[in-house]
Amino acid sequence: MLYEISEKAIQMENQGKRIIKFNLGDPNLPTAPEIIEAAYEAMKQGKTRYSSAAGEEKLREELGKIHNVSVDNVVITNGSKWAIFSLMFLLLKKGENVVVPSPHWTSYELVARRLGAEIRFLKRDLDSDWRIDVSKLENLIDKDTRLVILNSPNNPTSKVIDEKSFGEIVQIANERGAIVLSDEIYCDISFVKAKSILDFSTENILVNGFSKNFAMTGWRIGYVVVEEELAEKMIKLNQITTTCVPAFIQYGALKGLELRERIAAEIRERFRLRANLACNILSKTKMKFSRPDAPFYLFPKVDGLDSERFALNLLDSGVAIAPGTAFGDYREHFRIALSVPEKDIEEGLGKIYEALP
Amino acid sequence: MLYEISEKAIQMENQGKRIIKFNLGDPNLPTAPEIIEAAYEAMKQGKTRYSSAAGEEKLREELGKIHNVSVDNVVITNGSKWAIFSLMFLLLKKGENVVVPSPHWTSYELVARRLGAEIRFLKRDLDSDWRIDVSKLENLIDKDTRLVILNSPNNPTSKVIDEKSFGEIVQIANERGAIVLSDEIYCDISFVKAKSILDFSTENILVNGFSKNFAMTGWRIGYVVVEEELAEKMIKLNQITTTCVPAFIQYGALKGLELRERIAAEIRERFRLRANLACNILSKTKMKFSRPDAPFYLFPKVDGLDSERFALNLLDSGVAIAPGTAFGDYREHFRIALSVPEKDIEEGLGKIYEALP
Repeated sequence: MLYEISEKAIQMENQGKRIIKFNLGDPNLPTAPEIIEAAYEAMKQGKTRYSSAAGEEKLREELGKIHNVSVDNVVITNGSKWAIFSLMFLLLKKGENVVVPSPHWTSYELVARRLGAEIRFLKRDLDSDWRIDVSKLENLIDKDTRLVILNSPNNPTSKVIDEKSFGEIVQIANERGAIVLSDEIYCDISFVKAKSILDFSTENILVNGFSKNFAMTGWRIGYVVVEEELAEKMIKLNQITTTCVPAFIQYGALKGLELRERIAAEIRERFRLRANLACNILSKTKMKFSRPDAPFYLFPKVDGLDSERFALNLLDSGVAIAPGTAFGDYREHFRIALSVPEKDIEEGLGKIYEALP
Repeated sequence: MLYEISEKAIQMENQGKRIIKFNLGDPNLPTAPEIIEAAYEAMKQGKTRYSSAAGEEKLREELGKIHNVSVDNVVITNGSKWAIFSLMFLLLKKGENVVVPSPHWTSYELVARRLGAEIRFLKRDLDSDWRIDVSKLENLIDKDTRLVILNSPNNPTSKVIDEKSFGEIVQIANERGAIVLSDEIYCDISFVKAKSILDFSTENILVNGFSKNFAMTGWRIGYVVVEEELAEKMIKLNQITTTCVPAFIQYGALKGLELRERIAAEIRERFRLRANLACNILSKTKMKFSRPDAPFYLFPKVDGLDSERFALNLLDSGVAIAPGTAFGDYREHFRIALSVPEKDIEEGLGKIYEALP
């Protein structure tokens, strides 16, 4: 349904119709020119040939310094999505399961299904401000649970997991023999301090990338911090699948790391403004919501709403949103990505409000 | 063993030792500046955001025109290797098998093994000039054979499959319910005219890419021509794995297509010279070989040789080659990729000859 809306919005745009696209988690910001220039220089210097399936040594070293781990713990991946797919592909055996607090990013579910793994969701709700009930999560974990996937800040709620809960989840999962895969793709641009899995343990999995925090969504570069043995397996899988992330892209990312504080601050401030604007508008309506802790999303609720039908109809008003059902059992919710200019946010939210049943 | 040699060669280089690298199928040519400029322009124009999992419409259209198929039959992939992995991932069910004429590119075997599929090799030999015995191939195909993988021109022999055999194989495979996956990555730069699967049928699979024929190995862009239903499945798999090939890379490739005849001719002529040079040298030795029909490889044989031990020892003489065992049951063979300058070819082949037992 998420991809259906997305494809339909593109079709309508191709027909000349204007669509305010709240449906994609793709910040409408250009990649910093310094990053583009660094990639271009690398191309001209001949960084256009096969490179390491582990990633460029310099980029791995720099990421190792940032996370205080060895270069051997870092693997560069073709986007964080490829990291997640390959980890699930490598780690999940038949009959094993994955536990995920919901609402959740669509891809976790699609990948698990594609690999024939069982996926167990812990339902969270707006009324408890999307908090994880750790004892309920514990009940979902059994001897066949291989992975617990955390995503803080979360897509679609933009809420972070508090330190106490995070620590308890890691401890419980590890005690029961499960590994925590922590998808921290929104961490560096969070409005509030978000904890990293590495604050608790180095024996689990950190997944991160350059898409959201460097406005590099289309460059397809992510990375993991994992134990060496698992790193070796990922590198071997890269060798027979994607081979490597183009080296010149990695040199672009390396330049990004130099500028990371400036770029992250820019994105953070831009989206803080947008979040404040959107919250001010929404607070005057019957939509219920929780203030986001991070870019880019709001996940409001309207009692009794069928968000799938609503999202489809809303396209006729020139607004694209993602129905809540794309993120779990959340039919009364929908996701608004604030990835459009401020004036479009005002106009788009107005149209949503008018169209509400 | 292939990767072991490769890693060891890189280590030795990092220690300051000079290595003549005959081990990698990576032409030592820069990507054409026009391609680099086109990619740079696309970056600056903001082609840095998520794009279609099918590939950029313009690039698919252009490839559709070249192959005389609809845009819906073309899917852009993160390298031809990703195309092959994803096709095998999508098509092979448990208990099914793949038939591959050997010697063969290492990855077919590694992917099949990783996916738990059975792989059956048809042994070819130098004495019959690497020809495929079609009746023997037929005997390998049974009701569980899902794919027959052809690779013409072939890595590591650089020989093309003759038209008659190619046609017979397609007919037999299809009659027995198997699909032919034709990996034509060296086709456009072949010294002799190489047939394409599309000359025989549009109901099989063409895999191609930009690595070898545009000197774009490190850009990681390939494509397939497949039936629409399979194209849809590949696009869905891209959505949950690699997302897309960076759009700016696709605009580089699109520029490449404009220049394809010039670039292919340049590569072809350069490697024809190298092949002639190498054949002249080898013909004065006890090494047996067949003249290549295409870039980049020679696959000579030395009676009684243990090519794995030979390849490892040869590193000490400053030459890296790929042992024949990386391509099947060919211990007496080794692969020489002519991806080094002409003077290094002379020097390197001299060192190989001196080191022979």
